[in-house]
Amino acid sequence: MPDPFHFSTEIRVRLPETDAFGIVFHGCFFTYFDVARMDYVRNLGMMDFIRPISGFTAPIAHASCDFKSPAKFDDVLVVHARVAEIGRTSFTMDFRVIHKNANALVATGKTVQVVVDEKSWKAIPVPDAFRTKVRAFEGRDLVERA
Amino acid sequence: MPDPFHFSTEIRVRLPETDAFGIVFHGCFFTYFDVARMDYVRNLGMMDFIRPISGFTAPIAHASCDFKSPAKFDDVLVVHARVAEIGRTSFTMDFRVIHKNANALVATGKTVQVVVDEKSWKAIPVPDAFRTKVRAFEGRDLVERA
Amino acid sequence: MPDPFHFSTEIRVRLPETDAFGIVFHGCFFTYFDVARMDYVRNLGMMDFIRPISGFTAPIAHASCDFKSPAKFDDVLVVHARVAEIGRTSFTMDFRVIHKNANALVATGKTVQVVVDEKSWKAIPVPDAFRTKVRAFEGRDLVERA
Amino acid sequence: MPDPFHFSTEIRVRLPETDAFGIVFHGCFFTYFDVARMDYVRNLGMMDFIRPISGFTAPIAHASCDFKSPAKFDDVLVVHARVAEIGRTSFTMDFRVIHKNANALVATGKTVQVVVDEKSWKAIPVPDAFRTKVRAFEGRDLVERA
Repeated sequence: MPDPFHFSTEIRVRLPETDAFGIVFHGCFFTYFDVARMDYVRNLGMMDFIRPISGFTAPIAHASCDFKSPAKFDDVLVVHARVAEIGRTSFTMDFRVIHKNANALVATGKTVQVVVDEKSWKAIPVPDAFRTKVRAFEGRDLVERA
Repeated sequence: MPDPFHFSTEIRVRLPETDAFGIVFHGCFFTYFDVARMDYVRNLGMMDFIRPISGFTAPIAHASCDFKSPAKFDDVLVVHARVAEIGRTSFTMDFRVIHKNANALVATGKTVQVVVDEKSWKAIPVPDAFRTKVRAFEGRDLVERA
Repeated sequence: MPDPFHFSTEIRVRLPETDAFGIVFHGCFFTYFDVARMDYVRNLGMMDFIRPISGFTAPIAHASCDFKSPAKFDDVLVVHARVAEIGRTSFTMDFRVIHKNANALVATGKTVQVVVDEKSWKAIPVPDAFRTKVRAFEGRDLVERA
Repeated sequence: MPDPFHFSTEIRVRLPETDAFGIVFHGCFFTYFDVARMDYVRNLGMMDFIRPISGFTAPIAHASCDFKSPAKFDDVLVVHARVAEIGRTSFTMDFRVIHKNANALVATGKTVQVVVDEKSWKAIPVPDAFRTKVRAFEGRDLVERA
C-alpha cells in the first residue's frame, strides 16, 4: 500500500525541549506538529492561510498524540504531515514522527481545525481555495465530506 | 449527577504561553495537565511516584485535548484532574480546564500512562501502592480493570 | 543593611522547564522573571501597565541573568523583584531567585524596559502614574533619573 | 574591519515562540542562542563537548541579550555565534541575530560557561582539546587568557 504521507519536515531536538527524564517532553510534539503544519501550508503557497482571506482563521479544536518511542536531545526527527480529511467547516491533519537515524516510529498524531469567522468566532465553510489546493496536493488519499 | 472530579489546581496564564494570535498556544495545555498531574500526585503523598519504586516509571503513551474556548494572558484557569481508570499496566487521567472568572469550559483532556520497568522499558503491572491510594481518593468514580 | 527587595512571587519548577541535564534550562529564568514582573505590576494595581495608557507599551531592551546554583524539578523558587531605577524613557528591574527549601541563591537578573509609543515605536517619557506608584512602593531604594 | 563572526545558524520563528504582543517572547532568544551554540559545537566535531571527557560539563554562568528590533512569526533569523574568549576555567560566546529578509539587527547576546567537574561541580581548567579546536576555527579573533 502506498504511503498516504506526501510531505515532511525535519526537526532537530533542542535542549529546552527535553526534560529531566532525558527525553523530549511529550507536549513538545504539538510544537513539532505545528512547525510541520506551517511548513505544509507554506509549501502549498498558502502561508497566509492562517488568515487566507480577511476575516478567516482556523483554531485547533482537537489535538492528540500517541507516543511510540522516546526522542532525545540532538535527535533528528522527520515529521510527516498531511491533510487527511476536509469536512464542511473543519479539516483534519495527520502526523507521523520518525527518528531519522534509527528509522523508528516515535509518534503519531492528529489535529482538527475549525474554520471560523474572525469576528463572530462562528464556524464557516472551508474556503474553496484551500480545498482545491489540498485536493491537488493530496490526490486520492484525501477524504472530502459535504 | 455528582462531579467525578475531586481535585484541581489553579494556574495563571503566563505571557510566553500565549502566541501571536493573542491566546494560549494549544500545546501549552499539555503543560497545564502535567502541572495538575504532578500536583495530584503530590496531594496523595506520592511525589516520588514518577519513580515510586526503584526501577519503575510511567511515561505518557497518549495525550489528547479538546479545545472549547480560548484562554488569554493573565487568565486564571482551574485545572481539574483525576485518575479515571486503572488497567493492568496503564492508567488514564482526565482533565478539565475552567476559566475561573468567566466560569467557562476552556478544554478537556486525557492522558494514558504506561507503567514500565526502567531498565527494559517493558510494561509491568501498576504497583499496588499506587492503586490503593488512588482508589481511596477517587472512590466509586474510579474504574479498575484486571 | 536592609534588603532592597520588597516583593516576591513563588514558582514551582515544572517538568518541561527542566532539560536533559536534569536542571532548569537557563532560558526559563527569563520566564520566571516575567511572571514576577507581571505579579509586581498586578500588586501595584497596574496590570494594564503593559499598556497603561492607550498608545503605550514597554518592550524589553535588555535582559541578563547570573546563574549561581541549579534548580530542579518540583523545587519551589522565591523570585524577588523590584524596580531599581527609573530613567527618562526607561526603567530597570532587578530579580533574585532563592531556593525556598535550601534557602540558597539560585540566580540574580536584570531587565531594562523602554517605554515606547505604540504606533511609532519611539521612546517616550515614563508615565507619571507609573513613576508615582513605584516610588511609593519602593521608597528610598528607588533610583530616579531625569 | 572584518566580521569577527565566522559561523551562523538559521532559525525560523515558530508560533509558540511568539507571544500575545505578536512578537517573539524575549526569553526565546536564549533558546536560539542554545541552538546556535550546539550547532557551533557540532560543526567543530565536538558534539560531545557538553561532556567531552567523562566527568566534564560546562553549565551557563551568565547569559544576556540586548534586543534591537522585534522578530515575528515565520521570520527567518540568522544567528551568528562565536567563542570570543577562553579563560582559565570558563569561556565566553557572543551571538548576533539578523532578520534575514530585512537584513536588520534583531539582537546581540552573550553567554559565559564555566567548565566544571561533574562530581564536585567545581571549576576545572578548560580542556586543551576544546581550546585547540576553537583556536583553529576562530583564528586571531579569539582572545585567550591563561
